[in-house]
Amino acid sequence: VTRVGEGLEFDPRDVVARKRDGVELSAGELRAFILGYASGEIPDYQAAAFLMAAYLNGLTAKETAEITTAMIDSGDTISLGRIRRPKVDKHSTGGVSDGVTLVFAPLAAALGLAVAKLSGRGRGHTGGTLDKLESIPGLRTDLSPEELERQVEEVGCAVASQSKDLVPADGALYALRDATATVASIPLIAASVMSKKLAVESDLILLDVKAGSGAFMKTARAAEELAMACVGLAEHRGRACRAAVTDMSQPLGSAIGNALDVAEAVMLLRGDERGRLRELTVAFAAEALEQLEERDSSAARAAAERSLDDGTAAERFARMIEAQGGDPRVLEDPWSVLPAAPVRVEVVARGEGFLAAVEGEELGRIAATLGAGRIKKGDPIDHAVGLEFRPKIGDRLEAGEPVATVHARDESAAEAASERVRRAVTITPDPATPPPLVFGWHGGRR
Amino acid sequence: VTRVGEGLEFDPRDVVARKRDGVELSAGELRAFILGYASGEIPDYQAAAFLMAAYLNGLTAKETAEITTAMIDSGDTISLGRIRRPKVDKHSTGGVSDGVTLVFAPLAAALGLAVAKLSGRGRGHTGGTLDKLESIPGLRTDLSPEELERQVEEVGCAVASQSKDLVPADGALYALRDATATVASIPLIAASVMSKKLAVESDLILLDVKAGSGAFMKTARAAEELAMACVGLAEHRGRACRAAVTDMSQPLGSAIGNALDVAEAVMLLRGDERGRLRELTVAFAAEALEQLEERDSSAARAAAERSLDDGTAAERFARMIEAQGGDPRVLEDPWSVLPAAPVRVEVVARGEGFLAAVEGEELGRIAATLGAGRIKKGDPIDHAVGLEFRPKIGDRLEAGEPVATVHARDESAAEAASERVRRAVTITPDPATPPPLVFGWHGGRR
Repeated sequence: VTRVGEGLEFDPRDVVARKRDGVELSAGELRAFILGYASGEIPDYQAAAFLMAAYLNGLTAKETAEITTAMIDSGDTISLGRIRRPKVDKHSTGGVSDGVTLVFAPLAAALGLAVAKLSGRGRGHTGGTLDKLESIPGLRTDLSPEELERQVEEVGCAVASQSKDLVPADGALYALRDATATVASIPLIAASVMSKKLAVESDLILLDVKAGSGAFMKTARAAEELAMACVGLAEHRGRACRAAVTDMSQPLGSAIGNALDVAEAVMLLRGDERGRLRELTVAFAAEALEQLEERDSSAARAAAERSLDDGTAAERFARMIEAQGGDPRVLEDPWSVLPAAPVRVEVVARGEGFLAAVEGEELGRIAATLGAGRIKKGDPIDHAVGLEFRPKIGDRLEAGEPVATVHARDESAAEAASERVRRAVTITPDPATPPPLVFGWHGGRR
Repeated sequence: VTRVGEGLEFDPRDVVARKRDGVELSAGELRAFILGYASGEIPDYQAAAFLMAAYLNGLTAKETAEITTAMIDSGDTISLGRIRRPKVDKHSTGGVSDGVTLVFAPLAAALGLAVAKLSGRGRGHTGGTLDKLESIPGLRTDLSPEELERQVEEVGCAVASQSKDLVPADGALYALRDATATVASIPLIAASVMSKKLAVESDLILLDVKAGSGAFMKTARAAEELAMACVGLAEHRGRACRAAVTDMSQPLGSAIGNALDVAEAVMLLRGDERGRLRELTVAFAAEALEQLEERDSSAARAAAERSLDDGTAAERFARMIEAQGGDPRVLEDPWSVLPAAPVRVEVVARGEGFLAAVEGEELGRIAATLGAGRIKKGDPIDHAVGLEFRPKIGDRLEAGEPVATVHARDESAAEAASERVRRAVTITPDPATPPPLVFGWHGGRR
């Protein structure tokens, strides 16, 4: 332990002690503590003790709001004043085969909205939109704030990486939470998610809070709590936010990988694929139109469906890819552009019956083990590998019917993955009920 | 956050997470965590999160015992095999004007016992035995284990500083607890106290667990809990331990300083002073005789009283001082040897009546502010300064009667201290009952 923070005007231990004792901290204390940590004046060990106390004793809505504000103020914010279209931002808390953003951004652009989406890398068993997009050769995601704004003005959408200057406190706090078993705190998750959304100008924030075996929140109840905490933080800043709690008891789409996800997004954008991934993407686009353009629900939904079916969303995607340096032919012939894995193995279900359950997190981990994700931070990504897992809960499976395709670097990896996929699936003789896609929406109009 | 501990065979986060979730940790987990921290493989921030989780969720007796064992095993232990006399060790949890050790060690030696006392520096508002002894010019406390053993064999007693190799985990953990508001956890305090006592061979450990306004434990109940936790740790290692919960609602003796404490100890050792400090020291010496020599209670007490009154205890003190390089004339004429403060100011009570309460911790802090203690670790000590506070709770005070003497470096420090002393005292018109000296004893024979 080395003494640091001699220049601070308060003793950080007092803040730690009060949170330890369950006292509600003042705005000033929390601000000084978070900014002191972000600037390096408060050491990791004091912040770690604070985080554990906050994990165990909780944080009030007021405390969470003050922490979020301090986190935002730890770095730069992004204003998008030149953009005339209504601006919608969208964030998912992370799931398996969660390709909504890839489709949503060009779809919203095709509907006349603007999407300046700043995204992160994949963490744990869930994929990251940046990793997926970067499977398109040549595509850049390190857009400057000016490039981002210009592209959104011209194309209607952009997906770029967060700069280190945007909410730097979040990166530091997240790494510390990860190292100290304090990640799974709803107020801390809400502050992390919302600080990054609130630091970027937008007219509407849409949140997709995932619930189920493939998500960080395993129950709809926990996801609902997180959704409400996030909506509360937006309200505190006078920002419009709508949060959906959606099902992650099974993969949302079929693709679990990077190039595989892009290929699936292309199918959706060309109107060639139906199913839950399309349904949810349409729901988010419709929600944006309802909130920002005051369209009624069914008209909004119809407009979104039309943009997928008439090629206008696909055209926006091609323009976005091209603007970011990627090859737009990915829209016409994905596999002429995307890297493909050398080994493909079909996985056949054991026995017959109804698909009753899927271990979503395990499917995510299998894909990560194949190389599609990161076991630990900084690991390289193999864009070509992954899984396709096609059936949905409630589907009838015949004996010998292939349920998944493993895309692997070599035979032995493919074999190991196939065996794990088989074990991640529960088939029952009795019919199983499909889970709802959306459990509910939270938050109100501005 | 930098990743360390790549060489560990376990993930320290799992240990943190289980303590966070209130699960009882296994011996192996705790041992690996504590030794991993002591060796630097587990970083401060993971240990800080663990400490806060342990503070809030508690530690079972079994967990506390495993932590204590791992702490002992983090360094060297001291065996005193050459010493034939029964060995008694004594520790106080820290109080104000707590000069028991200075008198106890030579007194026990005079009674035929051996005392190899390893001591620490003062912390916060409480004095440290080493700091007190070092006010005797030339006196060394940095005895090697061999020097310690030889001196105890020859003289019967020694008071030396703990080496850094004795329970190094304790120093590291204490500094981290101090920085993270996790000091005040009874299991962690018990592990800290007992790891150091158990790392040194002895036939009996005597603990003085202080309770009251001048102690870390403010209530007798909390002190009792700590005493029982300490006794339990000794039992777990098959060691004999008796712990007294004693009053610290007021200073035990009169002197609060360093040279002042030595001068007071000399008065007691020459049989020239009665009162609570003598009474408690005699109680500890008698307890040691009862436990180690199977004397009955009143005979043991009489023997201890006699050793103070007939000069044999004083003679042991002189030999101990001389063996450690100090000037033994401190016994005959303390102030010819000890450093005296240039400014002395008498403090007169406001009003008259009965002394009802004394803010003991505040008196300790006043002395520290004068220079007798450390405001923060590593601060230098001024051995000459401090306070003498003479009346005890229940005493009748007359208007204008001096209650304390401030020994200061300069007039302005003396004036500020005097004003604070006046405010630390409550005088009531109604008679006040003196608190008991000893609330109770805990622990059994070996």
